[in-house]
Amino acid sequence: MAGNSFGTLFKITTFGESHGDAIGGVIDGVPPGVQLDLEQVAYQMSRRKPGQSAIVSQRKEDDHVDFHSGIFEGTTTGMPIGFSIKNNNQKSGDYSHIKDSFRPSHADFTYQKKYGIRDYRGGGRSSARETASWVVAGSIARQIIPKVKITAFVSSVGDIFIDKSYQALDFSLIESNPVRCPDIETAEKMETLIRQIRSEGDTIGGTITCVVQNVSAGLGEPVFDKLHAQLGKAMLSINAVKGFEFGSGFCGSRMRGSEHNDLFNQDGTTKSNLSGGIQGGISNGMDIYFRVAFKPVATIMKTQSTINTEGEIVEMQGRGRHDPCVVPRAVPIVEAMTAIVLADFDLLNKQYHL
Amino acid sequence: MAGNSFGTLFKITTFGESHGDAIGGVIDGVPPGVQLDLEQVAYQMSRRKPGQSAIVSQRKEDDHVDFHSGIFEGTTTGMPIGFSIKNNNQKSGDYSHIKDSFRPSHADFTYQKKYGIRDYRGGGRSSARETASWVVAGSIARQIIPKVKITAFVSSVGDIFIDKSYQALDFSLIESNPVRCPDIETAEKMETLIRQIRSEGDTIGGTITCVVQNVSAGLGEPVFDKLHAQLGKAMLSINAVKGFEFGSGFCGSRMRGSEHNDLFNQDGTTKSNLSGGIQGGISNGMDIYFRVAFKPVATIMKTQSTINTEGEIVEMQGRGRHDPCVVPRAVPIVEAMTAIVLADFDLLNKQYHL
Amino acid sequence: MAGNSFGTLFKITTFGESHGDAIGGVIDGVPPGVQLDLEQVAYQMSRRKPGQSAIVSQRKEDDHVDFHSGIFEGTTTGMPIGFSIKNNNQKSGDYSHIKDSFRPSHADFTYQKKYGIRDYRGGGRSSARETASWVVAGSIARQIIPKVKITAFVSSVGDIFIDKSYQALDFSLIESNPVRCPDIETAEKMETLIRQIRSEGDTIGGTITCVVQNVSAGLGEPVFDKLHAQLGKAMLSINAVKGFEFGSGFCGSRMRGSEHNDLFNQDGTTKSNLSGGIQGGISNGMDIYFRVAFKPVATIMKTQSTINTEGEIVEMQGRGRHDPCVVPRAVPIVEAMTAIVLADFDLLNKQYHL
Amino acid sequence: MAGNSFGTLFKITTFGESHGDAIGGVIDGVPPGVQLDLEQVAYQMSRRKPGQSAIVSQRKEDDHVDFHSGIFEGTTTGMPIGFSIKNNNQKSGDYSHIKDSFRPSHADFTYQKKYGIRDYRGGGRSSARETASWVVAGSIARQIIPKVKITAFVSSVGDIFIDKSYQALDFSLIESNPVRCPDIETAEKMETLIRQIRSEGDTIGGTITCVVQNVSAGLGEPVFDKLHAQLGKAMLSINAVKGFEFGSGFCGSRMRGSEHNDLFNQDGTTKSNLSGGIQGGISNGMDIYFRVAFKPVATIMKTQSTINTEGEIVEMQGRGRHDPCVVPRAVPIVEAMTAIVLADFDLLNKQYHL
Repeated sequence: MAGNSFGTLFKITTFGESHGDAIGGVIDGVPPGVQLDLEQVAYQMSRRKPGQSAIVSQRKEDDHVDFHSGIFEGTTTGMPIGFSIKNNNQKSGDYSHIKDSFRPSHADFTYQKKYGIRDYRGGGRSSARETASWVVAGSIARQIIPKVKITAFVSSVGDIFIDKSYQALDFSLIESNPVRCPDIETAEKMETLIRQIRSEGDTIGGTITCVVQNVSAGLGEPVFDKLHAQLGKAMLSINAVKGFEFGSGFCGSRMRGSEHNDLFNQDGTTKSNLSGGIQGGISNGMDIYFRVAFKPVATIMKTQSTINTEGEIVEMQGRGRHDPCVVPRAVPIVEAMTAIVLADFDLLNKQYHL
Repeated sequence: MAGNSFGTLFKITTFGESHGDAIGGVIDGVPPGVQLDLEQVAYQMSRRKPGQSAIVSQRKEDDHVDFHSGIFEGTTTGMPIGFSIKNNNQKSGDYSHIKDSFRPSHADFTYQKKYGIRDYRGGGRSSARETASWVVAGSIARQIIPKVKITAFVSSVGDIFIDKSYQALDFSLIESNPVRCPDIETAEKMETLIRQIRSEGDTIGGTITCVVQNVSAGLGEPVFDKLHAQLGKAMLSINAVKGFEFGSGFCGSRMRGSEHNDLFNQDGTTKSNLSGGIQGGISNGMDIYFRVAFKPVATIMKTQSTINTEGEIVEMQGRGRHDPCVVPRAVPIVEAMTAIVLADFDLLNKQYHL
Repeated sequence: MAGNSFGTLFKITTFGESHGDAIGGVIDGVPPGVQLDLEQVAYQMSRRKPGQSAIVSQRKEDDHVDFHSGIFEGTTTGMPIGFSIKNNNQKSGDYSHIKDSFRPSHADFTYQKKYGIRDYRGGGRSSARETASWVVAGSIARQIIPKVKITAFVSSVGDIFIDKSYQALDFSLIESNPVRCPDIETAEKMETLIRQIRSEGDTIGGTITCVVQNVSAGLGEPVFDKLHAQLGKAMLSINAVKGFEFGSGFCGSRMRGSEHNDLFNQDGTTKSNLSGGIQGGISNGMDIYFRVAFKPVATIMKTQSTINTEGEIVEMQGRGRHDPCVVPRAVPIVEAMTAIVLADFDLLNKQYHL
Repeated sequence: MAGNSFGTLFKITTFGESHGDAIGGVIDGVPPGVQLDLEQVAYQMSRRKPGQSAIVSQRKEDDHVDFHSGIFEGTTTGMPIGFSIKNNNQKSGDYSHIKDSFRPSHADFTYQKKYGIRDYRGGGRSSARETASWVVAGSIARQIIPKVKITAFVSSVGDIFIDKSYQALDFSLIESNPVRCPDIETAEKMETLIRQIRSEGDTIGGTITCVVQNVSAGLGEPVFDKLHAQLGKAMLSINAVKGFEFGSGFCGSRMRGSEHNDLFNQDGTTKSNLSGGIQGGISNGMDIYFRVAFKPVATIMKTQSTINTEGEIVEMQGRGRHDPCVVPRAVPIVEAMTAIVLADFDLLNKQYHL
């Protein structure tokens, strides 16, 4: 219960720090008989890894996944899938300047307060490196629910946002640009902004929208494990996330019931979908969609004042190869956590059918 | 794992439907030796109950809590606290018109799809009546962490919002008006709007802001049980909630790192608090604050078309005594779920100290 | 996690002390659509309750179960089933003599040490009264797995034991005598012994054997939630239990592999069944059988020396209406916990079938 | 929930099959600041590994543990400890004869029934190789509760048993002989018997007794997570275990209350200890002791008839390097699982102290 597991039946338990020899985990609850496409795992890992384009961190991480168990002759056996990813690129030297100082808006201070000890060589367990393991698990989760289509994309960077509903977008264009924004014109503006921000040694926030299609009605639990509550928890687990909304979201709080209610068609679909595909915590078969807000990365290449472990004010400047904007690389992470939540609810739902 | 429990060490498990004879639950993990102030429980229940003012549902619910166990001579014993609340005011006749029809944007349709059976006498388990049990548990949770001050208030109704930071507000005014808005001028506008909306047979959404003060640094887990992720899940469990943001929230996604970073003072406090009191999932000792978006109540007194269980289009009009705006009564629910999350993390944190 | 819940998908959470106003709990995970036979619940309760025969405790407990939720028009809805049982027969006066003293081999001392506080009016939460709630849950669990036949019986009292394999017994005779021993001649000896023990103000231990038939192959998890490990935990949760063995049990530790191995028939059944229906933690379709050891009840009507809360030696004599031998009334409790374990594994097993 | 995790706060999650490239797991909930003695881990691993003496399996397993996380400069950080152990000695050829046949009294048949697929190269996940990971976790658990002394030893092999109470034994002699029996004369008889059994191509069962000293009063939960119930579950999780008893155990079922009750001394200790150090599920500060029954290993070097996946009767003879008697190597496994249970309850107990 120290917070390193996620899920109930489909459950991942992870370990590892950014500067240890490896990260990895155990994926439990994968049903037997699933013929795994491990190239899909590698593909998703390539979408997350640093160095994939000019606008993300230029760290070199190979991110090869070693699977140790639970797969026999290419097929899942129902046994837990243990995996690890070597940290080939630990450069502890890069981080020595932060050994005794707390970086502003990082977890350095809170870890020190909570644990009384801290692996000062980097973000340790709070590093986004951890999310590589989530992408592994998410890639496998997707293969348990192959009919479900999960599509995330960057919907805003700073003040630049897509001014269209998701239905008006061509998802096939998401991977056509390094920002992962399906609206090409907007993508170009976003990329320009990110390059400018980086040249200033600064960082910028953004949002990701995720659309989940072909979810059958009935997933989610009614009271404390509502589908959207678990999705929200999953998203809020991702580094740098500050907000989550689904369906009409915060805009919905400004609406009237007569505008907001989704009226039924005769076949049980709804004419509008402000509910975001979820009513009473349970999927209704319409598209699920939600939006996730990411703050700007805290590590900036500008000089900031901060305190050290002695409580003295010191100057600090970010080093290393950090992302000027985290959202392009967070797209596969959002999708992975979504897949994990949905696979888990799919398995949980089987208990209701004697 | 059917979604009726919340929490790890401080854990509530609830039961009950709006039209059964009682609702209630079990509060497990309450440490022994806490002298309970049961009047506090009654007070919080009175803040949640219908009929408390002219702008909320006029249902009469007494909401007396019967405690069955875990308290001996006024003090907790470490044993689970079982409690129940009688449903004195079930008027099944009120709901007969919805036996065979699915109310738009309610859980009727999704329950039917998930379970193949549905207690058609009302919202059943999806009714906000359930939250009465949460307020009981939250009132007890607060008494486990007496130093922590949890304050929620209505920050917007429809397009009317408080245009001040929470630091500029006088929290002692929250209970001075039926909206539970500490800015009196804004509260009056909100009340006027709610009365107008109700007179039209319509409903309106709103937001609640919650501020948590005097939380010690170190609460929350770093990876999958981040403090804000669990708070988000708790809030998204509340009926009608569509969004959650903490600290800078969605606004933070438009900012630069150089603006957003919270620089330290020498004593470990921070000059700004865009982090919202949480860094890397762990409290840093600053105020925690977050905002919760509620959609407009789906039951409106206007005629809507919908479908029945035969898949036929039928006309339907809301009946009964529903809230025109849910946020005034949701304030104590937000506080209760916040208290439950914090009490649980407080207990969990003890394991780190050998 | 304070130990008041049992099970994963089919899960019970209980509350209540022997001298509070009620005990009860929440049964979560009952699939929807089960037409419940509540007379079966009442029947099982009648098998557990005191006063049912001359050789058990003469306390009067009505043990009427009030169901509050989760059942609609006689059928389960998939919602949690909340229930309570009033404690009509609390005679606190009976227990005043133990307010300040620790009864030998009771939980008085350990509760005081653990919690620093103790409801001195009786056994509190350590009372076997708690098991009434388990019988409720077990009676419902049985109805989820109607094909499975669970039969427990008293196999020994003190030195008197049934000297036959269970296959040689007529289970229809179990309820024919107050001891619940299907071997009539042995039952008579046991009854005589219990009466004699009681007349001496003493108590005596015994064992219960449980046979589970018609379990399909495949229930149980391979590593940490082995079917027999969870059954063992369930049995060891029952008050006064000191040991558990299944299949060949302790005798098996004296055997050779060539004797002990269960050779297969062509249809996958086995010629012998020393495995007790479980191999590698998973049911193989053969009968599951196990044996549970109960110590003698600690409350005796003889004078014993003990200590009080001041650490002084004092004399104490049991009062009240206690069982001279616990096993006859423990038979339905063993069956109930067995049913709970099997229903849970039955639900868990559905996740393996995509 | 697929059964690969054990524990609540101190929790291990494991993966791996006997013939994969590695086994391993994640140990979560280790408090920060524990200076780990990794030589202790290696020592315990050496007690479990094959080839350590002439009377155990002659497989060569190096069993070197690679720790990947959670330890920084020799001290635990509060982060999960990921570890792996390479399977250097997989000889898949050894097992090809069992690809299509079900070994009697193994898990081959039940795995096939449950999962519809099976890693036929060996025991897979049901192999006792898995217990190497438990010994790693147990070695770390011990270092969380350094005052607690856990001592297991072989108390019987076949019909040969130690005819003394544990108090009369010199535990320092346990490691003096390959059987791990502290009574030297008995140890010699046991060793002779095991050698003889092996020469016949047969196997033999046995029992292990475990004594836990210096446990403070108050560990364990009163109802469903009783200390002895969780110990029982832990022991019954070990391969080949058929029974568990603590304190007076099965013998206690033959006793009278007047004999069985443990009378108090003035200091709260008890004159006798038939309770086995646990009353009402909670430790009372006296020695905890229990006994675990192991069946004979199912793999024998004699020809047996069995069935294949086609349902045909076939002849089969065990191959490979199996243990003639499992108990000598199971001693450190019993200790490891005991340590895991106690460390978990020790952490859980902190929540009761505000």
